[in-house]
Amino acid sequence: MTTIALRPIGKVESHLTDLADAPRQADEGAPEAWLVIDADFAAALEGLKAGDDVIVITWLDRAERDILRNHPRGDPSRPAAGVFTTRSPHRPNPLGLHQVTVGAIDGSRVLVRSLEAVDGTPILDIKGLLNPDIQQR
Amino acid sequence: MTTIALRPIGKVESHLTDLADAPRQADEGAPEAWLVIDADFAAALEGLKAGDDVIVITWLDRAERDILRNHPRGDPSRPAAGVFTTRSPHRPNPLGLHQVTVGAIDGSRVLVRSLEAVDGTPILDIKGLLNPDIQQR
Repeated sequence: MTTIALRPIGKVESHLTDLADAPRQADEGAPEAWLVIDADFAAALEGLKAGDDVIVITWLDRAERDILRNHPRGDPSRPAAGVFTTRSPHRPNPLGLHQVTVGAIDGSRVLVRSLEAVDGTPILDIKGLLNPDIQQR
Repeated sequence: MTTIALRPIGKVESHLTDLADAPRQADEGAPEAWLVIDADFAAALEGLKAGDDVIVITWLDRAERDILRNHPRGDPSRPAAGVFTTRSPHRPNPLGLHQVTVGAIDGSRVLVRSLEAVDGTPILDIKGLLNPDIQQR
């Protein structure tokens, strides 16, 4: 199949700079972070406000792409599983999926609570949650 | 920022062939469909079984990428909103996010219930749900 080309819409700005310090999931002590959206895409943030819950899709650019099976949570005592059954960042297309709450908005910068992505991580998309109030096309 | 290159891991096989017939969301009458995973990535399915709930990320290749604001659910009577606050498929990087239940597995083909993506849609990733039982890295 052909390759698909994505252009990041922005990047994560966070005090988390070392993967070794990154929590495995947002509810395991992840810090707040800024989503710094490129000016070209700022209009797509219109209507977003503090308190909203959104889904952020990132590109985990430090992940390994040639791993198909691994041990859950890096624990060798647990049996290896296919990465498509897990949340491992190591996978053929390392897309990160994060549900976050918006804390504040400053122009095209969006403060979010508890994001387990390191500083500089490219952002690919932001989506409303799937519920009747915001189901849209 | 630089472009990011993704390689599809497979594609959707569905009776839905016309976008006009596709429901806006999976709970609005979407049919079952097969995720046809490339043999190269079949090992990453190991451990997946009927009854599992997973998240499928697709590439909505028929979406428009230059739309930043639109009317929710295509209804011009509703005020336009930034696409990052919605689930519109039209967005700079049209990634589709689908929570599905696995109905059956046949080799590297995975039957899922209620998928609102048309036949031929490229699949980029499959992930376990975010819950304590399958939280993994």
